[in-house]
Amino acid sequence: MIDTQNNDPLPSWQDGQNKQAILDFVQRTIDPQSAFYVPPANRIAVFDHDGTLWLEKPHLTEMEFLKDLLKRQPRSTRCDTEQLQNNGVGLMVKRRFRQLRCRIALLMQTIMADSRWLLRECMEGVSADQYKSWAATWLSEAKHPRFNRHYTELVYQPMLEVMQLFSAHDFRNYIVSGGSNYFVRAVCEPCYQIPAEQAIGSQLLTKLVDHQGQLQVELRPLPWFLDNGAGKVLAIENRIDIIPIAAFGNTSGDIKMLRWASISPRALCMFVHHTDAEREYQYSLSDKVLAAVKQYGWQLIDMKKDWIHIFPEPTAPNKVDENKAC
Amino acid sequence: MIDTQNNDPLPSWQDGQNKQAILDFVQRTIDPQSAFYVPPANRIAVFDHDGTLWLEKPHLTEMEFLKDLLKRQPRSTRCDTEQLQNNGVGLMVKRRFRQLRCRIALLMQTIMADSRWLLRECMEGVSADQYKSWAATWLSEAKHPRFNRHYTELVYQPMLEVMQLFSAHDFRNYIVSGGSNYFVRAVCEPCYQIPAEQAIGSQLLTKLVDHQGQLQVELRPLPWFLDNGAGKVLAIENRIDIIPIAAFGNTSGDIKMLRWASISPRALCMFVHHTDAEREYQYSLSDKVLAAVKQYGWQLIDMKKDWIHIFPEPTAPNKVDENKAC
Repeated sequence: MIDTQNNDPLPSWQDGQNKQAILDFVQRTIDPQSAFYVPPANRIAVFDHDGTLWLEKPHLTEMEFLKDLLKRQPRSTRCDTEQLQNNGVGLMVKRRFRQLRCRIALLMQTIMADSRWLLRECMEGVSADQYKSWAATWLSEAKHPRFNRHYTELVYQPMLEVMQLFSAHDFRNYIVSGGSNYFVRAVCEPCYQIPAEQAIGSQLLTKLVDHQGQLQVELRPLPWFLDNGAGKVLAIENRIDIIPIAAFGNTSGDIKMLRWASISPRALCMFVHHTDAEREYQYSLSDKVLAAVKQYGWQLIDMKKDWIHIFPEPTAPNKVDENKAC
Repeated sequence: MIDTQNNDPLPSWQDGQNKQAILDFVQRTIDPQSAFYVPPANRIAVFDHDGTLWLEKPHLTEMEFLKDLLKRQPRSTRCDTEQLQNNGVGLMVKRRFRQLRCRIALLMQTIMADSRWLLRECMEGVSADQYKSWAATWLSEAKHPRFNRHYTELVYQPMLEVMQLFSAHDFRNYIVSGGSNYFVRAVCEPCYQIPAEQAIGSQLLTKLVDHQGQLQVELRPLPWFLDNGAGKVLAIENRIDIIPIAAFGNTSGDIKMLRWASISPRALCMFVHHTDAEREYQYSLSDKVLAAVKQYGWQLIDMKKDWIHIFPEPTAPNKVDENKAC
């Protein structure tokens, strides 16, 4: 039994239909007497990332990271050191060529609103560890232009509470993100206490390289798997092989994932609706999402009405403790 | 501390260097005072499947399954029922064509010793659930030609004990198999108490199909990922993102996986050498494996000398309990 009398597990949620739906769902799932009881091994909850667990405006956080990465050109710097002694003129040409490619990638991303240009340019030939390390460093430094807080602090407090409530009742929480595998891995542990194994993202192809006896996983500029739409279901099936009983999303790319969870009549499926221009952002759900929500009877979370707090309290007034961002 | 005085955790292992190496490894890994202590979250052990956890002779078990599947042509039967009313002559042609394809697949597999022909022929357009269900049924019926026991009973008892010892000390065991994802999933839970999530196999491409509102994952005849050689490392990195500290294999396709684990000086890496023609099979390790074992100082398990028992005892004399195969 959830003890809601003495200890509200969802203090950032307004009392109402949605809060009650979450509590009822957990209650009927963990109660062995309930017709909707689910054994712990099958208590799988899946969460989209951008816009569902943390903010995604004005731009996707990983895109901000990639743009900064390209502007600083760390790969170019790295190559320079290696090649400096060997080839002065060749190096100049390569450097120029790389600068040109960086600009093209940034331009194409702007024109086509397509992140693939940036991803390929930033990831080609970079080791997986290097990419994660850059991401971790950037996340500890960069701040959101409007809120002036680290991105890792701009996670949704009410969703953290849902995850904690689930964990406390033997659910396993998975992040299923359209962002890259490696970026979501840099975030999942510090922000959500989720191990890399439970963070599923989009993938570039990787290769195993032998550097004088040392094996290293490197990224290749070939898209391998886009974790969006049907891809989210295929990734979950491939990774877990258990149909989730709870699913949270906020765009049309999450509809199939919620439909997959809805195979079970005991499932909890919710869409986050960004309705709070003042405390976060306000933007519409697509017609496709609204139609699906209606057709399948999913819950719509109204950020403005349902959430008492949006983001966690800063750890100290006027001062962010960088080590305890979330 | 492992209590070996009162309770031998490896009763099917002969006392000696290899048994001691396993016990020492677990001891130094779990002892917080040890320089080689590893926290539970990082205690990852990876096991090749065929020839490492269960027998692989005279033929790989999944290949036996696929050949039986093709001979029985369950897909053809399934299609017939659907199409019977519509098209008598067309059905005949399709049936013949399918029979011909089946024969070609079997022939190509024999000539080229290449399983891909069989895999594609058997898996095209089949739902993932259907494939797993066929595999589970076949495993409960088929028997090994020499030992006249179910294949699920022909797992190596000493390796089961290693897995149990690891599990008892907060390791997570993963099967990393060149066989298909779905076949290894049909085996991992009943034989090794490993959930599907911890079984990594080769993959065909999948697609999400909407059957009148019902979503279903179907297999496509396109090879997607071969979980062998470097592929094993890339799969582990992609799935777990933690370098294993224990790795077991028996062919050259496992060398890179053991090298990956060997990045850590605290790792335990072992190759199974099939030396027992009487109780199992006798066949050589490749020169590549022998060279790697020597170069990296890995342990070689001599099946004949090291293992007191090879397979688990049958559950009742002269009678196999089909529900408790392993």
